[in-house]
Amino acid sequence: MTFDATEALRVALAPNAIGVIGASENPHKIGGRPIAYLSRFGFKGRIVPVNPARTEVQGLPCFRSLADAPEVPDMVIVAVPGELAVEAVGECARLGVKVCIIMSSGFGEVHEAGKVQERAMRDMALRAGMRLFGPNSQGLANFGNGTVASFSTMFTEVAPQDGPLGIISQSGAMSVIPYGLLRQRGLGVRHSHATGNDCDVTVCELAAVVAEDPHLRLLMLYLEGIPDPWNLARAARTARERNLPIVVLKAGRTPAGQVAASSHTGSLASEDKVVDAFLEEHGIFRAQSMADMIATAPLYLQGWRPRGRRLVALSNSGAVCVLAADAATQENMPLDELQPNTQTELRGILPGFATVRNPVDITAALLTNSSLFSKVLPALARDPAADAFMVGIAVAGAGYDVDVFARDSAVFAQQTGKPLVVAAPQESVALKFREHGLVTYATEGEAIGALGRYLTHAQRMEHATRRQPRIPGPPAPPRDGEMLDEARSLALLARHGLPVVAHRLCRDAADVRAAWLQLGARRVVVKGCTPDASHKTELGLVHVGVADAEGAQAASEAIAKAAFLGGVRLNGFIVAEMVQSGLELMIGARIDPVFGPVLLVGAGGKYVEAMPDMALLMAPCSAADVAAALERLRIAPLLHGTRGEPPLDVAAFCAAAVAVGDAVSNPSLNLSQVDVNPVFVRRLGEGCTAVDAVVFQTTPHGTDPIPTPQEILTEEPAC
Amino acid sequence: MTFDATEALRVALAPNAIGVIGASENPHKIGGRPIAYLSRFGFKGRIVPVNPARTEVQGLPCFRSLADAPEVPDMVIVAVPGELAVEAVGECARLGVKVCIIMSSGFGEVHEAGKVQERAMRDMALRAGMRLFGPNSQGLANFGNGTVASFSTMFTEVAPQDGPLGIISQSGAMSVIPYGLLRQRGLGVRHSHATGNDCDVTVCELAAVVAEDPHLRLLMLYLEGIPDPWNLARAARTARERNLPIVVLKAGRTPAGQVAASSHTGSLASEDKVVDAFLEEHGIFRAQSMADMIATAPLYLQGWRPRGRRLVALSNSGAVCVLAADAATQENMPLDELQPNTQTELRGILPGFATVRNPVDITAALLTNSSLFSKVLPALARDPAADAFMVGIAVAGAGYDVDVFARDSAVFAQQTGKPLVVAAPQESVALKFREHGLVTYATEGEAIGALGRYLTHAQRMEHATRRQPRIPGPPAPPRDGEMLDEARSLALLARHGLPVVAHRLCRDAADVRAAWLQLGARRVVVKGCTPDASHKTELGLVHVGVADAEGAQAASEAIAKAAFLGGVRLNGFIVAEMVQSGLELMIGARIDPVFGPVLLVGAGGKYVEAMPDMALLMAPCSAADVAAALERLRIAPLLHGTRGEPPLDVAAFCAAAVAVGDAVSNPSLNLSQVDVNPVFVRRLGEGCTAVDAVVFQTTPHGTDPIPTPQEILTEEPAC
Repeated sequence: MTFDATEALRVALAPNAIGVIGASENPHKIGGRPIAYLSRFGFKGRIVPVNPARTEVQGLPCFRSLADAPEVPDMVIVAVPGELAVEAVGECARLGVKVCIIMSSGFGEVHEAGKVQERAMRDMALRAGMRLFGPNSQGLANFGNGTVASFSTMFTEVAPQDGPLGIISQSGAMSVIPYGLLRQRGLGVRHSHATGNDCDVTVCELAAVVAEDPHLRLLMLYLEGIPDPWNLARAARTARERNLPIVVLKAGRTPAGQVAASSHTGSLASEDKVVDAFLEEHGIFRAQSMADMIATAPLYLQGWRPRGRRLVALSNSGAVCVLAADAATQENMPLDELQPNTQTELRGILPGFATVRNPVDITAALLTNSSLFSKVLPALARDPAADAFMVGIAVAGAGYDVDVFARDSAVFAQQTGKPLVVAAPQESVALKFREHGLVTYATEGEAIGALGRYLTHAQRMEHATRRQPRIPGPPAPPRDGEMLDEARSLALLARHGLPVVAHRLCRDAADVRAAWLQLGARRVVVKGCTPDASHKTELGLVHVGVADAEGAQAASEAIAKAAFLGGVRLNGFIVAEMVQSGLELMIGARIDPVFGPVLLVGAGGKYVEAMPDMALLMAPCSAADVAAALERLRIAPLLHGTRGEPPLDVAAFCAAAVAVGDAVSNPSLNLSQVDVNPVFVRRLGEGCTAVDAVVFQTTPHGTDPIPTPQEILTEEPAC
Repeated sequence: MTFDATEALRVALAPNAIGVIGASENPHKIGGRPIAYLSRFGFKGRIVPVNPARTEVQGLPCFRSLADAPEVPDMVIVAVPGELAVEAVGECARLGVKVCIIMSSGFGEVHEAGKVQERAMRDMALRAGMRLFGPNSQGLANFGNGTVASFSTMFTEVAPQDGPLGIISQSGAMSVIPYGLLRQRGLGVRHSHATGNDCDVTVCELAAVVAEDPHLRLLMLYLEGIPDPWNLARAARTARERNLPIVVLKAGRTPAGQVAASSHTGSLASEDKVVDAFLEEHGIFRAQSMADMIATAPLYLQGWRPRGRRLVALSNSGAVCVLAADAATQENMPLDELQPNTQTELRGILPGFATVRNPVDITAALLTNSSLFSKVLPALARDPAADAFMVGIAVAGAGYDVDVFARDSAVFAQQTGKPLVVAAPQESVALKFREHGLVTYATEGEAIGALGRYLTHAQRMEHATRRQPRIPGPPAPPRDGEMLDEARSLALLARHGLPVVAHRLCRDAADVRAAWLQLGARRVVVKGCTPDASHKTELGLVHVGVADAEGAQAASEAIAKAAFLGGVRLNGFIVAEMVQSGLELMIGARIDPVFGPVLLVGAGGKYVEAMPDMALLMAPCSAADVAAALERLRIAPLLHGTRGEPPLDVAAFCAAAVAVGDAVSNPSLNLSQVDVNPVFVRRLGEGCTAVDAVVFQTTPHGTDPIPTPQEILTEEPAC
């Protein structure tokens, strides 16, 4: 591209002039509402209406065509249908417009021909150095400077107010629903952009520019697909550099949701866990629902710098204390006991029957002594057990000095700089706290839930900032690959650092006898080596516990027969040492069509599909990443030794997983999928051994040599 | 008891006259507010203020003592402190009062002496035929007849309105917080009772009487402990008989919550899963939070008779459709495809680019054609795929005929009789739907979440009604029991129906040799039989895979040595057949101190504690109950056969589990705990075999004879 593709997006957020092709006198029409909004919400630039049928629109001079206008606006809204829209975009390109918002619908969202038109418009625009939003875009709205180039009715229904929040979505509805819900809570929203069909500029590319806005404190994205993860990664990097959190509501979490997303925006579905791993890697928090996203938003505006998750809860109701303890535990927020001197201090303040542990139950004595509250807070502020606070005012009214509680809480929050949330079911009470700048929820569960999400996000951002995740490139085109047989798979992975079981590849029964002798007088496994099946046990291709040369020969004969009956080719027989000690884990890797290489680690063995226990990471990754992922597994306790067993060699397994992740991430290897299962992990210091593996490779005889059947692996892994 | 103990509770909900001992002129004092409320909220009976210092209180004649009053009220509020309260209760008892509400605090919630006073008051009252609420009770409030014998300030803050909802709680806060939140949503609340320390009448006992109110449509309980499950079971039975749902918010779900609950109400903690199992058995729904309970409440008032969980979602926003599909999947609500003829019909109504699958995306075309909505609904109503509906109006305002949408939806809901929830983020839109009697939520996630909970509850109630669960008695006093060694444990359980492994109990090495021969030429396990340890492997007391008589003898010698070194007694050696086939499951049972006998089934083996996969049931139970519980396990797919394996003999395992549940429920056996692990479950028709067991029994030499070490089990289980 010969122009600064990003600069045009900055223009879109603050153009000097906006043309409207298809300008309408009627402010309820698509071509009329943006003009009305631009005037109403204080757009400082020029508005250039274009409509061959009119000389004036909404009090502004109107032009026959854009070419007739006295200036070429840097941004143009296209609000004419079908072919007229395509022509309008062409004219914009010719005249040197920098960015077009195509509001017209009836393109890619309707039929395949529309997609073709979209691509043609995009290619033409890019050649001319122009960027496109839409088609089918509800428009952009920047309330910071009045650039409300949108036809959403929501800005009429709910009055805007500039503020530190931003929302970007393809869907018009999801650009304004959060706007409406946030405004209902009295929060100011600056950006509310709906990008439509994203034929050129995508939500994520726009996000990377919106994230530059120094006024923003929280950026929210609604996504159904993430076709350009590199743009989202760039947005996240820009945001992290200025400590701007990004929350994503990514729909299509479930198969049913993915089907619906595919008919709505044509989104390509990645496995949902890949999306999770990608977002986490880049410090982006994924909201589980719109309600969660909205409930958490105000916490980001408080300017806190959270240090940890330990909660101190405080209420005038013992029951609220109990529910708060439940909620905190569920949110993984420990309720550490207060220091002895804090407890002593509290005992001096509170009545004898109050609870001075944590949660702190001030009891109904607060009714007769409103000063209890302001006395308790400073004592808590000094306690090192507190990273964050929940204040629950269960019931208050006549007799309670709620204004004092609210003021004292606000002062306390400001002085400590620590997160503080308020639970107050009575709206009159909540209002007082909000007037003092605090964030309130109706119940302790909602308050602690929101706080927990906020704290998790803070931890993730910090982690991502430390790690500096790389910006991925566009993924390689999807590739299926050819399945390598077990011997080739093991050989390839062994060459790239995976410790594999000592084994011999044999041509015939005589070879098998010889291999048995060569491997020593141990028990062995005899397997058929086939490129046609990955589940070999069901086909009768695996004989375990073979204890002598005769047995080995007999096994190979049985396997040959089974292969014939099962209709699979045999590339020979594998005679492998029988690994009998260690915990069975698995390592998997593949190329996600959208996000690129991913690594899977988890419990191994026969029931990996029936009872999955896996964690997914973006690849390549570090041993520390793998170790952290292992801690999320159900089998984690077994890795550290349980029931008197010694801890396992987790480091060796992590190194093996990293090797597989590196291999699948290495473009010269052309791997599309790797399944290593089981990997036996032995006790600390004794390493691990992969016993079976399947590799899919697009060019099996390409850059990496594959051993011929005669070749024998001579390395003897530590056993 | 010589009086009808329950009748007094009916009196408490509708007394003819209410005395107030400690009556106050000041309506903000505990002794004044109930008088003000009774007058204000229309109590029809007589109010009898008692205060030796006054002749008139709040315009009513006041008496020196209750004895001086012209009548003995059937209910009396005690609002005087400490010893005066105890005396007042005594006087009430002497005069024949039927029920007392002790509002005074400073008893059991403050110190141990207070508990002693409480018990003394209760015993005295019961002897006199009087029932007590409290002490420390905020009071009872029945807005159906104005019996607002409460001092909660909430009824001043939020104006009451009689309605079909009831709330009972020990905690004052939790009796009025839901009241306030429900009233904020415009719902009418009849009952809001706070029972306090529950020295006599408990929340659950009161619930059993409140459940008789024919006006109620939903009864909500806040509980920190359930000391009297039989009362809750009675309440549930009464409620089921008239199709009244009970929702319980049981706090203390987590260890931290249980600690807090124990300092708040002194609740005895049961394992939380026991509470779940008990509530489910009786058709009671357990809300996970106050917010969830409140959000679901209005759905109970719609008079629906739900038939299933299949959802049809409908919106004018594709994004809402996607999020709805995600939410429905998460709530286990299938989005079945619409019938072909429904799809055809919809295609005739909607524009070509609309989605006529499920969810149905009407698209923004609704803006230009408001009638689309009313045309789509009848088509959906005829489709058998719909058990329930979610209507999402993403954005509407100028241009949309929201009133028509709302009216059409209401008519549709009424005609189909099927549950319908509305998601409308704009309050102005939501209001229209509420005006037509529908239930609205801000987002599709909240709407579908509430609907899912409601439908789950309906299913549970139906199930409980079919099963007619028994009303438990008070549990036996806690008993620790003595651990029986393995041989005795197996023998006892075998006698009561558990299939156990073929084994011999041996005195010495010679016996072990003989046993090896007797069991046949198979591989055996040799174990030390000790009453001092249940985890035998760690102590070196288990030798597996012993293949000959010499090996067996050597194993017994090694075991003897290990037992000596480990400091445990040996009651002999067990030589058992080595069961090598089958899936390892476990069966556990014990006596919960509150709820009585419970049964556990789950994955067995070595890592039961490290990686629990268990389901808990109330015992005794049926094989069908066990089978249903097994379906909730992670290992469930293995039971039905996976990776080409045959299905397992689930019926045999269920029968074994029922036998253990029956044994622990049999009071004459005096069992306190049973752990059977592993139980090998073989393929269908081949049964199952318990290989190890530990039984704890309080009177091991009591009614059930235990075999002496010489006795040998001769039954040979099918292997």
